[in-house]
Amino acid sequence: MQRWKLTIEYKGTDYCGWQRQEDGVSTVQLAIEDSIDKFCQQRLTLHVAGRTDAGVHARGQVAHFDLDYGNRALDGYDLSKALNAHLRPQPISIIRAEPVTPDFHARFSACNKLYHYRIINRASFLGLDRDLAWHFKKPLDVKAMHEAAQILVGHHDFSTFRDSQCQAKSPERTLDRLDVIALDYDSCGGREIRIEAEARSFLHHQMRNMTGALALVGEGKWTKKTLKEALEERTRTSGGPTAPAEGLYLMRVDY
Amino acid sequence: MQRWKLTIEYKGTDYCGWQRQEDGVSTVQLAIEDSIDKFCQQRLTLHVAGRTDAGVHARGQVAHFDLDYGNRALDGYDLSKALNAHLRPQPISIIRAEPVTPDFHARFSACNKLYHYRIINRASFLGLDRDLAWHFKKPLDVKAMHEAAQILVGHHDFSTFRDSQCQAKSPERTLDRLDVIALDYDSCGGREIRIEAEARSFLHHQMRNMTGALALVGEGKWTKKTLKEALEERTRTSGGPTAPAEGLYLMRVDY
Repeated sequence: MQRWKLTIEYKGTDYCGWQRQEDGVSTVQLAIEDSIDKFCQQRLTLHVAGRTDAGVHARGQVAHFDLDYGNRALDGYDLSKALNAHLRPQPISIIRAEPVTPDFHARFSACNKLYHYRIINRASFLGLDRDLAWHFKKPLDVKAMHEAAQILVGHHDFSTFRDSQCQAKSPERTLDRLDVIALDYDSCGGREIRIEAEARSFLHHQMRNMTGALALVGEGKWTKKTLKEALEERTRTSGGPTAPAEGLYLMRVDY
Repeated sequence: MQRWKLTIEYKGTDYCGWQRQEDGVSTVQLAIEDSIDKFCQQRLTLHVAGRTDAGVHARGQVAHFDLDYGNRALDGYDLSKALNAHLRPQPISIIRAEPVTPDFHARFSACNKLYHYRIINRASFLGLDRDLAWHFKKPLDVKAMHEAAQILVGHHDFSTFRDSQCQAKSPERTLDRLDVIALDYDSCGGREIRIEAEARSFLHHQMRNMTGALALVGEGKWTKKTLKEALEERTRTSGGPTAPAEGLYLMRVDY
């Protein structure tokens, strides 16, 4: 029995999220488990670093599974190539497969996760990045967003920014970094605003809820003080809107 | 009569290029002319800075047209908003509309064009950027590509890199800049290789043909010397392959 670690890229638009569901709807987990089944005629279960919601993308999701491949040799490159061949033409790609020791766990061994949230901030709608970013028409004050974001950095009770359905035992998390940066996007003044967040783990919808609140700050509807008070309220109803799924990317998981 | 300049973004994947065709197939020009017709009930003709082939994208294409809107006031923001409303949900966006003087011509007044060509250089296929970049599996030597590219900079007869159907009177052009740069693409060593080219004008397929030849250099099949000799042959058959359309972006046109 060999444990394998997969690093995975996907466009989440046409999937009902990562997690396999009982009704067999299209999910990323099901698609990859199907490809493993086609490769080795075994129905195996993937364990993931962090489930993503419908429409959320990944550039570096991680999952593991255990494979009994008999005495035959198998290297990571061949495994990723075989799985990718079965996944085609779906927008899911195994960018690396590597053997790991049995104590490795995609979720429990993770020491850091990096998420990016992409906002395209301009009046005209999106030609190239539809489904790949949040289109926000009103001008956003990036400096105010970044300054306010620093309130959320550190160890806090994040009840304000967790989904009401979140099943985590504790609402406390340590957010190590939350940066808001602006990049040129087009030749007419349109900007991409990228929110970068790092933590060992995140609550359900935490990144999208923090983004929704930061957009209120960027619009001038909230101040740094409003955000601080919202955090201290420790109730989801104080937290502002949830940003849409299409802007969110799980970029990397560190071990 | 008012002349209007449009700056346009589009995803070229599902279009048979920019130019309207007699058989009425889906093209970017036809889609925008249709939107103008819906807006003002006039069948007007767009004049473009540079036609793009099927599958080629634009972040800053430019076109102009003349509109008789009577005595009614019309500002650029309202015009772009109206055209975008009619274009939806197509992946074409008017990112700016502005009134210009009658001596402005999208093609003839252009003094500089910037193209980017995107190559994703890694073994595993593309999850997120399918149709949006050239997937190149074998490792490319970016330094060798950039050094060889400098041979093409300057005033040359580019017959080797023009399509056999190219209708330009002269095969001579002045290439002002051709840079090949590498960017991190994923967390597993995959790289994005971007070729940036600037010139007042380009021959048909010039950018894709230069890219095809530079990929041969990157693979080690051609040297700087081979590229120089190919340029001097002044015949398309010496020029190597044409890179696929999906990696090419018209980024910006300067006036």
